[in-house]
Amino acid sequence: MNALGIQLAVELFDCDENILNDHRLLEQSLVEAATNAGATVVNSVFHQFNPYGISGAVIIAESHIAIHTWPEYRYAALDIFTCGTDIDPNGIAEEVQYVLSADRMHVSRILRGVTVGEQERSYAQTPT
Amino acid sequence: MNALGIQLAVELFDCDENILNDHRLLEQSLVEAATNAGATVVNSVFHQFNPYGISGAVIIAESHIAIHTWPEYRYAALDIFTCGTDIDPNGIAEEVQYVLSADRMHVSRILRGVTVGEQERSYAQTPT
Repeated sequence: MNALGIQLAVELFDCDENILNDHRLLEQSLVEAATNAGATVVNSVFHQFNPYGISGAVIIAESHIAIHTWPEYRYAALDIFTCGTDIDPNGIAEEVQYVLSADRMHVSRILRGVTVGEQERSYAQTPT
Repeated sequence: MNALGIQLAVELFDCDENILNDHRLLEQSLVEAATNAGATVVNSVFHQFNPYGISGAVIIAESHIAIHTWPEYRYAALDIFTCGTDIDPNGIAEEVQYVLSADRMHVSRILRGVTVGEQERSYAQTPT
């Protein structure tokens, strides 16, 4: 793979609107999905909007996972950005789809850092 | 615009490697770029990796900005996700390009939540 990172832009439709508005459950679920995929969670920040909607990001040693929810449309925008080959971002997407009870999911895959030079690459990043 | 959000996947090449490894400057710069664009910053989380590289995310009322840097390749992956029409994500990209002294920038634009129903939409989210 000639890229530094893989990013999945995940569209989740027809979700459970109550879950989309539960920021503690969402944060816990994204952290667990990252951990289950073998990622190392570094930090996370989630925010509940008024009257509804959540935005959150989980920083992992292998990049990040972010989510924005629109409970009024039963829709969530999920982003999974991973570097290296140890983490399967599709597994994270499927776990979040399950947690949100999303009837439909559409995934766009974007390669990042593709045209960076051909020198030997070190993907591993160790949290300090 | 028939979408809930616009996401820019911004590739920044040939950056200043010292700036790419300065997590305080990066956090300050992304927060300032968001504010200058008229966004409301809700929270931010940045992490310095060992031996180098930064990952960070700024949660804004209008969604998020995230960055991952590879100083060893003078490369940064920037993501700007905005909802509503008040914020110009291209302005944020250009400001970050300037801060990082990136000689080359490539921007991919992704529409999010496009197939959500046609009912009247409320973009505004007020931080609690």
